[in-house]
Amino acid sequence: MIDLKTTRLYQEIHQQPEVLTRLLHEERDTASALAVEIRRRGIDHVFIAARGTSDNAARYAQYLFGAVNGLPVGLATPSLFSIYQRPPRFGNALVMGISQSGKSPDIVSVLAEAKRQGALTATISNFPDSDLGRAADFVIELHAGEEKSVAATKTYTSELAAIALLSSKLSGDSAMTVALERVPDFVAQALTASSDLDCVAERYRYMTACVVIGRGFNYCTAFEMALKMKELTYTSVEPYSSADFLHGPLALVAEGFPVFAIAPSGMMLADMQSFMDTARQRGAELIVISDDRDALAAARVPLSLPAGVPEWASPMVAIVPGQLFAMHLALARDFDPDRPRALHKVTETL
Amino acid sequence: MIDLKTTRLYQEIHQQPEVLTRLLHEERDTASALAVEIRRRGIDHVFIAARGTSDNAARYAQYLFGAVNGLPVGLATPSLFSIYQRPPRFGNALVMGISQSGKSPDIVSVLAEAKRQGALTATISNFPDSDLGRAADFVIELHAGEEKSVAATKTYTSELAAIALLSSKLSGDSAMTVALERVPDFVAQALTASSDLDCVAERYRYMTACVVIGRGFNYCTAFEMALKMKELTYTSVEPYSSADFLHGPLALVAEGFPVFAIAPSGMMLADMQSFMDTARQRGAELIVISDDRDALAAARVPLSLPAGVPEWASPMVAIVPGQLFAMHLALARDFDPDRPRALHKVTETL
Repeated sequence: MIDLKTTRLYQEIHQQPEVLTRLLHEERDTASALAVEIRRRGIDHVFIAARGTSDNAARYAQYLFGAVNGLPVGLATPSLFSIYQRPPRFGNALVMGISQSGKSPDIVSVLAEAKRQGALTATISNFPDSDLGRAADFVIELHAGEEKSVAATKTYTSELAAIALLSSKLSGDSAMTVALERVPDFVAQALTASSDLDCVAERYRYMTACVVIGRGFNYCTAFEMALKMKELTYTSVEPYSSADFLHGPLALVAEGFPVFAIAPSGMMLADMQSFMDTARQRGAELIVISDDRDALAAARVPLSLPAGVPEWASPMVAIVPGQLFAMHLALARDFDPDRPRALHKVTETL
Repeated sequence: MIDLKTTRLYQEIHQQPEVLTRLLHEERDTASALAVEIRRRGIDHVFIAARGTSDNAARYAQYLFGAVNGLPVGLATPSLFSIYQRPPRFGNALVMGISQSGKSPDIVSVLAEAKRQGALTATISNFPDSDLGRAADFVIELHAGEEKSVAATKTYTSELAAIALLSSKLSGDSAMTVALERVPDFVAQALTASSDLDCVAERYRYMTACVVIGRGFNYCTAFEMALKMKELTYTSVEPYSSADFLHGPLALVAEGFPVFAIAPSGMMLADMQSFMDTARQRGAELIVISDDRDALAAARVPLSLPAGVPEWASPMVAIVPGQLFAMHLALARDFDPDRPRALHKVTETL
């Protein structure tokens, strides 16, 4: 048996409130300066290059920059730069790279080309002196401390917070800034509320496949929870938006098929509830992550979130039970959560 | 036992060469006119809204418009329009909607808002008189005839051909136009080359989970083959780029885990071969779709493609064994390929 509290993963998950507090304080000025430059140049869209966990943070940026700042965000296609060497022209876009290590050559190649073209470039990384950091005009540093567990947790939530910090500075909305400063406390509450996940995870000891559904702001949460489960527990877990899931993959759902639903309060909740009704009618086993009483009541297994989190900030909080569930499921299967098979901390792809 | 050749799915898969020929002939002028307008307006990036199979066609456009036309392509986030009602500003983007039926309200909402903002809009659909068709400045019609099988096949390849037709007109490269006209013949060759897939599918009768890997131009092929397998055979199939797969999900691969690799000739092949080496070292069972002798020799199960297809056109050809494999696997499991459980032909999501 592995002693949970001695694992890096447990410790890093529980460091998240302090990491977020530090980031939001230390990077205020950089985020403001980048916001000024975005406005000065009249930037009207964004492309982001990222892989793995950082790509899930990019998915959050698609919704946050879109909804709050009116900026459409596309995800870059790194192989056009690194393998095909046929880079598109970025025009007046902001080009961002997101990477914990800042090392993956394909992501660096996107930023280097964007800079060569004269586009505005920014990096979000735990290592400002990395290749990716040096390739960018602006660097928002994560201040997460060293992340030793292969599965990224504190660097994920701090990447989301870096994106939210930039969005708030760009919006000039002081209420958003105030709300953002409460996020570390909400994350701490989510850690406390999820203390019984060890028992919940036992139920899924022999689960071989499942899906995780989230849409809108929490599309990223579905992807990130699924990735943690794949990395740590080797389960076939596929993330979907509820809308995409109805366009085909719904056929997967048979009696008892486990469906994890990310359904915090907000404008998306009614759509998620309608999706959960459909899944339940098809016999799915619903595991629901929510702060809403009705959504939780509809679940076979409810996982509570703290109340009062604005929907745009909810991805930073809603991933916490996802991280803890994946960790506990790894332990239930006697897998070492700090050393998933086949993986290294830094993955360098061309 | 279901009589294969009487199924709509079999018939529609085999109609693909004639559908492609018709589309490439009938839509030449519309594609040229749209290309003229894109140049006239100085359009420098593209956003595409689509779901399911059509979203996989959008993935093809990301690589083709990027590599051939220098246009970066982002995938739109329909819920910002339909649910959150916080649409981003499209600026000088081309906004495209892709949908077989042209009916899904969330996709229509993106085009309607783009038109309201004054952006250039285009639809690719089998129904030019649909809501999506009427919302757009330009409509490229698929000419696929009615698609009765729930799983889309001929509308997928014709969506790819519509994208390639526009790209060729925009590039003004007559060699590309000539190569595109040979695609229907390559698709016919791929149909003939895949005639032994019924026996291959037997081997996977009890497979519960697998991954499909493709990158670059064939990123879309991995997604579309995975979607057909999910819709028709209810297997947990997850598509990945080889680069994304190495950033975490590689942990899934244990001895005998089935890995389908889309690896046609071209600039991406070396990267795919390096990925296949990694997967084989971890004990994966490799099923390889390729025209390359070495790539096929590395496979436990090789699936041949016709030779001589340019890499940019290969997604229209490489999906054919994927469609046929999914169909035969459905039959091996005694599932009706025309009526997947839980699905309807037209899915309308908000």
